[in-house]
Amino acid sequence: MARHIFRPTRYHNTLGTAEPCLRIADGDTLVAETVDASGLDANEVAVAARPNPMTGPFFVEGAEPGDTLAVEIIRLTPNRRTGWTYSPLALTVLDPAAILDRPKQERAIWEINANEGTVRLRDAPAALAGFTPPLAPMIGCFGVAPAGGEAISTATSGAHGGNMDYRRFAPGTTAWFPVSVPGALFYLGDGHAAQGDGEITGTGIETSFEMEVRLSVLKRRITWPRAETAEEIITIGNARPLDQALQHATTEMQRWLGEDYGLDARAASHLMGMVVRYDVGNVFNPAYTVACRVAKKWLTKA
Amino acid sequence: MARHIFRPTRYHNTLGTAEPCLRIADGDTLVAETVDASGLDANEVAVAARPNPMTGPFFVEGAEPGDTLAVEIIRLTPNRRTGWTYSPLALTVLDPAAILDRPKQERAIWEINANEGTVRLRDAPAALAGFTPPLAPMIGCFGVAPAGGEAISTATSGAHGGNMDYRRFAPGTTAWFPVSVPGALFYLGDGHAAQGDGEITGTGIETSFEMEVRLSVLKRRITWPRAETAEEIITIGNARPLDQALQHATTEMQRWLGEDYGLDARAASHLMGMVVRYDVGNVFNPAYTVACRVAKKWLTKA
Amino acid sequence: MARHIFRPTRYHNTLGTAEPCLRIADGDTLVAETVDASGLDANEVAVAARPNPMTGPFFVEGAEPGDTLAVEIIRLTPNRRTGWTYSPLALTVLDPAAILDRPKQERAIWEINANEGTVRLRDAPAALAGFTPPLAPMIGCFGVAPAGGEAISTATSGAHGGNMDYRRFAPGTTAWFPVSVPGALFYLGDGHAAQGDGEITGTGIETSFEMEVRLSVLKRRITWPRAETAEEIITIGNARPLDQALQHATTEMQRWLGEDYGLDARAASHLMGMVVRYDVGNVFNPAYTVACRVAKKWLTKA
Amino acid sequence: MARHIFRPTRYHNTLGTAEPCLRIADGDTLVAETVDASGLDANEVAVAARPNPMTGPFFVEGAEPGDTLAVEIIRLTPNRRTGWTYSPLALTVLDPAAILDRPKQERAIWEINANEGTVRLRDAPAALAGFTPPLAPMIGCFGVAPAGGEAISTATSGAHGGNMDYRRFAPGTTAWFPVSVPGALFYLGDGHAAQGDGEITGTGIETSFEMEVRLSVLKRRITWPRAETAEEIITIGNARPLDQALQHATTEMQRWLGEDYGLDARAASHLMGMVVRYDVGNVFNPAYTVACRVAKKWLTKA
Repeated sequence: MARHIFRPTRYHNTLGTAEPCLRIADGDTLVAETVDASGLDANEVAVAARPNPMTGPFFVEGAEPGDTLAVEIIRLTPNRRTGWTYSPLALTVLDPAAILDRPKQERAIWEINANEGTVRLRDAPAALAGFTPPLAPMIGCFGVAPAGGEAISTATSGAHGGNMDYRRFAPGTTAWFPVSVPGALFYLGDGHAAQGDGEITGTGIETSFEMEVRLSVLKRRITWPRAETAEEIITIGNARPLDQALQHATTEMQRWLGEDYGLDARAASHLMGMVVRYDVGNVFNPAYTVACRVAKKWLTKA
Repeated sequence: MARHIFRPTRYHNTLGTAEPCLRIADGDTLVAETVDASGLDANEVAVAARPNPMTGPFFVEGAEPGDTLAVEIIRLTPNRRTGWTYSPLALTVLDPAAILDRPKQERAIWEINANEGTVRLRDAPAALAGFTPPLAPMIGCFGVAPAGGEAISTATSGAHGGNMDYRRFAPGTTAWFPVSVPGALFYLGDGHAAQGDGEITGTGIETSFEMEVRLSVLKRRITWPRAETAEEIITIGNARPLDQALQHATTEMQRWLGEDYGLDARAASHLMGMVVRYDVGNVFNPAYTVACRVAKKWLTKA
Repeated sequence: MARHIFRPTRYHNTLGTAEPCLRIADGDTLVAETVDASGLDANEVAVAARPNPMTGPFFVEGAEPGDTLAVEIIRLTPNRRTGWTYSPLALTVLDPAAILDRPKQERAIWEINANEGTVRLRDAPAALAGFTPPLAPMIGCFGVAPAGGEAISTATSGAHGGNMDYRRFAPGTTAWFPVSVPGALFYLGDGHAAQGDGEITGTGIETSFEMEVRLSVLKRRITWPRAETAEEIITIGNARPLDQALQHATTEMQRWLGEDYGLDARAASHLMGMVVRYDVGNVFNPAYTVACRVAKKWLTKA
Repeated sequence: MARHIFRPTRYHNTLGTAEPCLRIADGDTLVAETVDASGLDANEVAVAARPNPMTGPFFVEGAEPGDTLAVEIIRLTPNRRTGWTYSPLALTVLDPAAILDRPKQERAIWEINANEGTVRLRDAPAALAGFTPPLAPMIGCFGVAPAGGEAISTATSGAHGGNMDYRRFAPGTTAWFPVSVPGALFYLGDGHAAQGDGEITGTGIETSFEMEVRLSVLKRRITWPRAETAEEIITIGNARPLDQALQHATTEMQRWLGEDYGLDARAASHLMGMVVRYDVGNVFNPAYTVACRVAKKWLTKA
């Protein structure tokens, strides 16, 4: 199984059927550079257009419609020393009456300290002088070419993945996407150095990355993205409103518990009713993201 | 500061202005029995009507409209050996297409093992034979008389609290409610022996309790319920859809960070954008509940 | 059947179980004065508190829980020469990004010309100099005491009716409400001299009225409010988001077509699929209102 | 100005940048055949794949990004004698609890009587024996290539138009779309012989058509689709939930009243607050459609 080092020369603002940038084998590892959400590369040079320019698409040999592409996130290394965010809180997360008092949107710079494993707001106000949350890299936007010949903007997301901006898409997580075209056509980019739940300022700390992932083909069918960590299985719904995203994620989890863990709809509800956890991935993009999580300690493979 | 032991003889299905069952002083502790969501008491005798019959209301001396009532949850002790849940998953959490395949709603019995600190489904299917999640008591419905002379069903929730069914309303948490009437008129009940996020079967493990809480009056004004644990501050929004519940919780957190921690709207967004956490309290009741959490380690009192 | 002239001396800001202001017989007619949404009477004297102070409750002899109260709207006569509205558009009807450019909320006065049957904005800008839309009186808030001992704010609505702000609640329409308490306990008020769809400024032309209605008890059960005009049958859903209000209204129409017109679910869908009409009653109040309409010309009583 | 007769040989399931099927001049008229939503042509032969195969794209000379394409709907002539619908009511319009009693989805055939100007359900149940609503042709799906290189499924809609399923897109209406690519790249199809509000069975009467439209380029910029009839101006929002679709439509109407009729935000709200009308275009597709209408009689060109 090979390890490919890939430096892109062109970028994509949609996930769709485009000319592959590279063909790799099932099980290969990919080390790929990605630019930030606004197209700035490691040297802060603008090399691509908004929104969320993607590296890819990678053609994975053997992936066929109806299969699943597993993306093991091995390493996410910011390749410059700063990233940027917006402030204040996004329009989507405020009581409409509070929008009237909202300050103007501005861009702020954050310093990334890889040695310390922290990030820090440059020119922080006094009240945030000591605020150095952990460096916690994640992939904001990744996924595969959608079904039906669509080319879907990297601003949004769907069953194919896309701009989910969910903080658990981080090293240690393996994400699954439903394959709709031969070769899957995998894209990735929009890395964040850190981000809370919901991407509630409309950004994480947006920066450029070297991302290392391993791509494998599973001969099984899924409906919505799934993910796995050492401790949990996770399903993802992408839609508006949040209620509908949650419905997709919950229904997909019920399916998974049936397929792999021998739980019918009633048994799945007994288990989920006690131990399910929900995360709000993002509540900013055109489609919102909700994750549904179940700890593996409660599960036994059927 | 006194400790009152209270055994109710009548129950309430709305939170409103009713004759107090007891008058207590600011800072007093209350040990109160509560029945389950369907009105069954410690002996499984039906003593009250659905939904969520409440113990109360308690008049807290000194509480005036515009104040805040702090409810320290000291202890929640189930006072019988079983509780019940519904299955399968609620209509509100399923993709509508999945509702067509949903099995019929049934009531199941769970055994509560206080010594082991676990719960266990009675007559569990083989796949759940080893499923003994922790006993994790929480208050499903509590709050104060609402403003404007309303009497709001214990089926739902609002700015006054009510049926939020949020699992972190548990021992170690202090909940805050906005006082709208003299004496606050505090109600509590609908205890759950355990529940995951979202109350996604429409129930936690519904059982009767002895609940111990300490009630204090804060001379400050809040808009939505708040809560505090040793590690976190939490705000609550109650509304449909989830998006709106999240907006209320987020806006209230922004207010709190301004009031107590010296963060203006822009600074609050920088901090929340990195470290905020959301929980889905319930996604079943007429009003859904979203909690917004910030760890205290990121905060300094202004 | 008697005709009662009623002038209120007290008002209500909730619909609930309160002392009746008058007991009338099934089939009696009621001529009642109502104040405007802010409590101003015919002399523009403030006699009641916000929101939407109600005249009532009227106890209708023979009305029992499970029955339906029919309210024939005979006449709505503004009893002063002006009313008021807010501008600009409400927060709920604007793209959040447009809220940032919204001018401050202001109150405007409208002149009511009963002879001409028009209304006119006082001190109108030049572009509205010739804007004299028709005087088209409607009832903003009316309904009955809800089930379960609730007292629901006149700011909002539900299965019991309430603040629906729907322009077809006008003379010529008979509205139906589900009776939940003995005597039904009917309330009315919040008259508007005119209003478009959606109550999108948060107001119609708010003014005081003499309202004439005839109240009758139907020995049948409904779930959501219904209405009838000479040409149409109408069902009402009250909820957030609009999607859910529409679901309630549509489901209630399907029920009605089955009960009275011999159409099963499939036949009802064939008919509704071709001829149904939806109105947005209000998209401003805590619960939104959607009306579902079917013309009687397509229907035959079963 | 030419009149082009076009018979397609290939169809599209996305609106995007594809090879034009024909280049026409600004102001030319187009007579184009379209197949039904499932790909059946005038002979009921399956010539294209679901969903909603489109005829096009037509390149309109002179149309540039930032312009507006006006589509005058001149004539919609069904070119076969039958169409089809689904029953019962769609999952999206039912109270979730009512989904449990919903009969299975079935396809029904409707006869189109062009002479009488009516449609009639074949093999109708007795209760619908006399149900012959008017033949009222409309375009279900039409629009232009979207911005940003997207190719958007004909199952859904957006700012570019698409599958709006709105019954006023009928002869006598001129629809406007925002141009995002050179030549606009106009698509049309998915004709319905008749449909009520909301497309609440998931279909209108789906059939093949000869459609005649006239395409003109306006050198002005719009954000969401607009339309004009002899009596009204109309704006369209496409999103979920309905609330958001309504917000887009309302905000676009406010813009239009400012651009063409001299009404600032406050004046626009005074006028709209009295006379606005909303239609629910569809409440079935991935994006719902709401139309906002203002009668021209209330307006004066600035």
